[in-house]
Amino acid sequence: MKDGKTRSVYFVSESTGITAEAYGHSLLSQFGDARFTIRYSPFINTRDKAQALADELAHRAEAEGRKPIVFATMLDEEINAILKYAQCNYFELFDRFMSDLIEATGMEPSRQAGMSHGLVNLENYEARIETINYALNNDDGMRLNKFDQADVILIGVSRSGKTPTCLYLALHFGMRAANYPITEEDFEVGDLPDELLEHKDKVFALTIEPERLAAIRELRRPDSDYASLRRCIKEVQMAQDMFHRHGMTVLDSTTHSIEELASLIKKSL
Amino acid sequence: MKDGKTRSVYFVSESTGITAEAYGHSLLSQFGDARFTIRYSPFINTRDKAQALADELAHRAEAEGRKPIVFATMLDEEINAILKYAQCNYFELFDRFMSDLIEATGMEPSRQAGMSHGLVNLENYEARIETINYALNNDDGMRLNKFDQADVILIGVSRSGKTPTCLYLALHFGMRAANYPITEEDFEVGDLPDELLEHKDKVFALTIEPERLAAIRELRRPDSDYASLRRCIKEVQMAQDMFHRHGMTVLDSTTHSIEELASLIKKSL
Repeated sequence: MKDGKTRSVYFVSESTGITAEAYGHSLLSQFGDARFTIRYSPFINTRDKAQALADELAHRAEAEGRKPIVFATMLDEEINAILKYAQCNYFELFDRFMSDLIEATGMEPSRQAGMSHGLVNLENYEARIETINYALNNDDGMRLNKFDQADVILIGVSRSGKTPTCLYLALHFGMRAANYPITEEDFEVGDLPDELLEHKDKVFALTIEPERLAAIRELRRPDSDYASLRRCIKEVQMAQDMFHRHGMTVLDSTTHSIEELASLIKKSL
Repeated sequence: MKDGKTRSVYFVSESTGITAEAYGHSLLSQFGDARFTIRYSPFINTRDKAQALADELAHRAEAEGRKPIVFATMLDEEINAILKYAQCNYFELFDRFMSDLIEATGMEPSRQAGMSHGLVNLENYEARIETINYALNNDDGMRLNKFDQADVILIGVSRSGKTPTCLYLALHFGMRAANYPITEEDFEVGDLPDELLEHKDKVFALTIEPERLAAIRELRRPDSDYASLRRCIKEVQMAQDMFHRHGMTVLDSTTHSIEELASLIKKSL
């Protein structure tokens, strides 16, 4: 690292590697992501595949002059052992916590891979897929009558971050998230439609700094009135007036990522 | 657990709690998710909030007759200490790995929260949001000329799982994922369009069991020819013939979740 070279980091799992990635990424982000070269090794679910990966790690350790870092979530003890003694700095999640968790729960783990992100419960899975379809089909505010089916409704001016946040809520939390874009028509009427206000208790309002909004819109429609700072300032101000008038929860997408917005919404429910 | 009651589990973090959730969920899935009641406590970023949570944990431990399980990712040592000594079975990710990781990297962690899922690098973040817009705008195969911008192109018959997988690839991996639905027109022509075949190297084909496809389509358009098993069998067979003719990588969405499909695609690139 000190010599400016990046270091190889592997995310390894018998299944998707999503958990290994989440925890490895979280830990690495404390040291500055840019210094690491990320390599994905999901579905290392046989001893042969583990041995092949161990060979690759040894090869890379020699070529790069230092051991790769490996973040892993392994359930099979033999596969785990092959990697544990390979040429790497090995960070394995399950091994370190499992015995404590067995003690805390008084239960035994299944040690089956794919339980976390696989097709374990088809009914739950299909319900989650359905929330994605719901988000896509209720992305334009055109189906005002469908709001009674929504778990949450995100509102805000065009390009304030509603759609990606709705999709994240659906994909990650399985929530039915509709969105309603505040348009010219609402500004002319001077208020939000009754069909929306009826469901005020599940509305979250997104605001955004006008400068940032103008930059985002500029990418979409360069040199348009739509992207002008003047118009963005006016829209954001008028939208915020509406939010405050109705006492709505307002979240700022300038300072919060879609993951943070989604977590704040999930927490508030 | 043995008495049939569920046990409270908390996902706690100074930031979104996404990492705490991923690792907690992964570990718990080994014991059967249904036995636990999940509670989200993100943004526990002050000592006061930690103390309030500790009080809640004590309260719940007394009410439920056993300590809640807490999965946490804490960077601030004082906040961590408040929870560590609260009435709970405490599983904290960072503490257990950080010293080993400091030794492995020879670097010091920033101990700043929000580094993993916050708005740390605006340029990267906006690029990721743009991939979501790309997936949404290239969801119907109507923009054949945009395929040169795609990192991957998913193809398959209607309702084979292309759209949710594309969205996951965008949201999670920041990949530009387009999709192309194989339609009646393609079946009549008997082959895929040249504009798609030009990019064959980045095409992943999704297949699905006809019975499952019929069930999914039935929810969409009940009692339609579109949802009939006869038609689903025919479409899947004709699509598979095309995939094989062009030597495309075929993945099965009957047996793989969107997370697994996305990981397989990411791994193959």
